[in-house]
Amino acid sequence: MALVERSLLGPGPSNAYPEATAGLAAPMLGHLDPEFLAMLDETGNRLRTVWGTANQRTLPLSGTGSIGMEAAFVNFVHPGDVVVVAVNGLFGERMCDVAARYGAEVVRVDHEWGTPVDIERVLAAHPAPAIVAAVHAETSTGVRSDIKQLGAALRERDERTLLLADCVTSIGGEQIELDAWNVDIAYAGTQKCLGVPPGLAPFTVSERAWQHRVEKPTTWYLDLGLIGNYVTGGASGGRAYHHTAPTAMVASLHDALGRIIAEGMPAVATRHREAGEALQAGLQEMGLELFAAEGHRLHQLTSVVVPEGVDSADVRKQLLTDYGIEIGGGAGKYASSVWRIGLMGQNARLDRVEMLLGALKRVLGR
Amino acid sequence: MALVERSLLGPGPSNAYPEATAGLAAPMLGHLDPEFLAMLDETGNRLRTVWGTANQRTLPLSGTGSIGMEAAFVNFVHPGDVVVVAVNGLFGERMCDVAARYGAEVVRVDHEWGTPVDIERVLAAHPAPAIVAAVHAETSTGVRSDIKQLGAALRERDERTLLLADCVTSIGGEQIELDAWNVDIAYAGTQKCLGVPPGLAPFTVSERAWQHRVEKPTTWYLDLGLIGNYVTGGASGGRAYHHTAPTAMVASLHDALGRIIAEGMPAVATRHREAGEALQAGLQEMGLELFAAEGHRLHQLTSVVVPEGVDSADVRKQLLTDYGIEIGGGAGKYASSVWRIGLMGQNARLDRVEMLLGALKRVLGR
Repeated sequence: MALVERSLLGPGPSNAYPEATAGLAAPMLGHLDPEFLAMLDETGNRLRTVWGTANQRTLPLSGTGSIGMEAAFVNFVHPGDVVVVAVNGLFGERMCDVAARYGAEVVRVDHEWGTPVDIERVLAAHPAPAIVAAVHAETSTGVRSDIKQLGAALRERDERTLLLADCVTSIGGEQIELDAWNVDIAYAGTQKCLGVPPGLAPFTVSERAWQHRVEKPTTWYLDLGLIGNYVTGGASGGRAYHHTAPTAMVASLHDALGRIIAEGMPAVATRHREAGEALQAGLQEMGLELFAAEGHRLHQLTSVVVPEGVDSADVRKQLLTDYGIEIGGGAGKYASSVWRIGLMGQNARLDRVEMLLGALKRVLGR
Repeated sequence: MALVERSLLGPGPSNAYPEATAGLAAPMLGHLDPEFLAMLDETGNRLRTVWGTANQRTLPLSGTGSIGMEAAFVNFVHPGDVVVVAVNGLFGERMCDVAARYGAEVVRVDHEWGTPVDIERVLAAHPAPAIVAAVHAETSTGVRSDIKQLGAALRERDERTLLLADCVTSIGGEQIELDAWNVDIAYAGTQKCLGVPPGLAPFTVSERAWQHRVEKPTTWYLDLGLIGNYVTGGASGGRAYHHTAPTAMVASLHDALGRIIAEGMPAVATRHREAGEALQAGLQEMGLELFAAEGHRLHQLTSVVVPEGVDSADVRKQLLTDYGIEIGGGAGKYASSVWRIGLMGQNARLDRVEMLLGALKRVLGR
């Protein structure tokens, strides 16, 4: 059967950077091989660079992005802890589910989808929560929230509350400064702006948060104490086997991060911004309405209102079959009234913009 | 920096089948693309073939082998359930840890490492446990246990007890007939005899076990009810997005399984047996002692006693640096007194046997 080639311009996965594909296909190493461990260390360093953090505990977890969310709650929620969750889309919604499974007393701060997190309302929701959780770039709506300002406000109020940020769709697509923003726990995915296939969840935790972790979480697989003994070395400095690291995926992430850092994170962010701005301008010129609130729109992921009288699924199907272009539907109640168009990683390029605009114009007959 | 090529002859990961590597590097598909969903369905079919089961719920979980163990317990242990675990190596040991985290009353049946599971003792441990768990092929010791006989004995006693089998090192390396053996829950890894890089955990569950699952497990990521809605379709037949499937890894597994099935599972099992027998004969001719009990030795993974006066780590290091060959040390208290040599998947070949025997002979000066 012939292989099918797609332009993955949905909310992720995106097409991989060529370096990521080459990394996947490179000769395999064992998970205890000194060469592999050096690569794992360097991957940690590169994640620190891209994320703007000095956290020692910065590592790729062995699962897709969602496993990062799970690890963030299972390792840091003590039963009965108050966790304030800013909900402005599907992934904030999911945080509430996950946190509750681990015994948190969840305080939701609901927002209209398409709008950014309202920091005042989050602060007012509880005077002294154990954790405040928010999504930096909401994949479900295409909205960016101001994590920097949220972190500053929280730290001004007290020294105790931990700030947890979902960076799945922001990492590698825009400048992030976790340490300067006072973020304590963050997770991400590889399949968006990092330009790596899905399968790993970059994760980082501050020393302050580490002191408040759950000593023996219910999960064995995501027990950060055990994983840390392998990835960053135990108290004795040695590395203890925990589970077999997904070596090919780590190599792929390592090589994609190398490429991003060689290009320079500021330049990569600019590339994403320019592609996103060109796309958004082009869509509006076509008479389409953008879904996310102005001033808070992601460049790497654009949400578009499906015009009246147009069948969302038909358009997506036609783009896929006639042009090999995948774009996404909306999430939740916006499933059929919003499209999501991603220009992430390797796809954050002007040629992709023209290709998508041209194809969409034809399909919509505009 | 030059890429390093290794012969991965330890307890896993093993070198990938060429088809698996090609699958990794094929053009990426989105996790909701019809082409990808067809590939996922076919991967389920192929897993059913290799595992000898008709279970509808047969799928690759998005993590390494250990996530299969976690999923097996978190989804089927109700707090207070009696779980009898046959412990004859590291992975039986780990099952006790994982089961206890989810509230099981664990009844351990300890065996000397290197020996197979004693079915009479397992049966005698408790008259009516909720689950009996055992490892088919113990990666830590190189021992095979008779899961078929265990299943028959359990089913003869009652209809209620679920049988859970770890197939991480057996899948794809020997004939398995889960349905005929009365296994209810099984998990595996991709990086051993399936010849795929680490990163997925094949998983299967019988209808009988499904009826006894935990409706809302603590984990969100491994909630089989939610995952099933995506992988096998929900009650309505539609597929609901859960998490982004690791598409490149699934393609790799799909292609390696295709190759195994084309060769034929009986032929693949014979290839593993012949390679293992040749290795074990050669090691004994060299005057080395095998660790696993005779008559219960795996062909795909051979455990060898490190000879008196020989430094285990030195030998492994010399094999790695001078020959590019990775073999494993022992596990647990046998870390430095046992070597583990795997001939799995692509490496279950006579040329690998000669290469390893020749190199080991030189290094040991025999």
